[in-house]
Amino acid sequence: MQDSEMRHLWQVANEMADAARAAILPFFRGAALGTENKQSGGFDPVTLADRAAEQAMRDVLARARPEDGILGEEFGHDAGSSGLTWVLDPIDGTRGFISGTPTWGVLIALSNADGPFLGIIDQPYIGERFRGGGGEARMEGPQGAQDLRTRATGDLSEALLFTTFPEVGTPEERAGFERVAEAVKLTRYGMDCYAYALLAAGQVDLVIEAGLNAYDIQAPIAVIEAAGGVVTDWQGRPVHNGGQVLAAGNAELHRAAMAKLNSA
Amino acid sequence: MQDSEMRHLWQVANEMADAARAAILPFFRGAALGTENKQSGGFDPVTLADRAAEQAMRDVLARARPEDGILGEEFGHDAGSSGLTWVLDPIDGTRGFISGTPTWGVLIALSNADGPFLGIIDQPYIGERFRGGGGEARMEGPQGAQDLRTRATGDLSEALLFTTFPEVGTPEERAGFERVAEAVKLTRYGMDCYAYALLAAGQVDLVIEAGLNAYDIQAPIAVIEAAGGVVTDWQGRPVHNGGQVLAAGNAELHRAAMAKLNSA
Repeated sequence: MQDSEMRHLWQVANEMADAARAAILPFFRGAALGTENKQSGGFDPVTLADRAAEQAMRDVLARARPEDGILGEEFGHDAGSSGLTWVLDPIDGTRGFISGTPTWGVLIALSNADGPFLGIIDQPYIGERFRGGGGEARMEGPQGAQDLRTRATGDLSEALLFTTFPEVGTPEERAGFERVAEAVKLTRYGMDCYAYALLAAGQVDLVIEAGLNAYDIQAPIAVIEAAGGVVTDWQGRPVHNGGQVLAAGNAELHRAAMAKLNSA
Repeated sequence: MQDSEMRHLWQVANEMADAARAAILPFFRGAALGTENKQSGGFDPVTLADRAAEQAMRDVLARARPEDGILGEEFGHDAGSSGLTWVLDPIDGTRGFISGTPTWGVLIALSNADGPFLGIIDQPYIGERFRGGGGEARMEGPQGAQDLRTRATGDLSEALLFTTFPEVGTPEERAGFERVAEAVKLTRYGMDCYAYALLAAGQVDLVIEAGLNAYDIQAPIAVIEAAGGVVTDWQGRPVHNGGQVLAAGNAELHRAAMAKLNSA
């Protein structure tokens, strides 16, 4: 892909993220609750925000990239004709959203047949955007902009692990996760997609989850890989279609965590 | 206390929070790590930030309120002579801090013999400040300012619960927490002191913790009570000296949660 084409795609992706921010923020923390209760027809604020944001992003694509496919959490799959597909989760982390925590995010990925090659994790309330792909690995936030670079931590005993467990997963999956948790320095919970952004930013070393959909993980894959990390399923295979996810800051730590996950 | 005196105390408290922000942010997410590794003498960034922030707040008090007492996490207790004591936790949530999550906070409370009557929970990275006491209950953040008001949720089955469990607590304490968790609509983890701010802001309904120190809980008490909530220990007694904490958005929900905690 030419540089000029990549710059165009980043421009479109950022415009989509801006549109999603504007659509979601009026609903966050009940900011527009009085109005929305009248208009909702039974929907809760997070559902209204989810739909408004995905529609806003689809509107950008209808103008700028009408031939691309779209796979969105809310409005399903349009195949398109360009061979490229935008994979959208307008609000990843709805439990965080309804609790008021700034840990949910807007996930935007662009995929070809090999998987995602451009991704954005956006946190609208904080005003933070983590971007990776096409030679870029960068974040902009309230304290300015900086490059994204994963950490070199190679030993589990020094690693910081994030997860949505104990909230999700089967008993067997949880047992696998627990084996890794017992080996690491610190395990933290409840961060939704923000955990993947922190891994890309070199703040934490591992994220382990299960039961993900394609739209939950494609943007994190693009951002983390651009920052130097490794994202696969628990057997080391591509995970852009979802499932059990193991994300690590580097290949050595990825191998060590995968061995624990599969040592039952 | 006269209004003019209360305004003065708020001015001092805000100045302290500003000073703590400026002291801490250079250390967050390793922003100044290159420099600090040389200067640290073996201390980690969070310890350096903790000390720098408490010193910065003590410097404000030395100029503005030299007769007040100070109880700080890092530098201990100075009794003072005014009958008022500033209770300071420069970084509450060090595990969150070292993980890069914006869930830690600066806690500032002002107490008399009856406990805290003014409190600030400040999140420097997001730029959010939650304040309560002396007739004020207010937050300022990236999306503007608004009043703080706890929620009216009276039934456990509708409640959102936050906690630092499974990270802390004895087995008995955890069992008590689990009885409440089983009764509520949603339990979320890993928010450090930010959970108390969300309770004051009417986003969540309950926070349950154990093993807290006075400096961990005095600022949350002042902020939550000013916003209409109830904060006690697990037996309904004052908790400004620390211990097991039960914070609720209202008295009805507080009673229901306390009954579960003590139903073993």
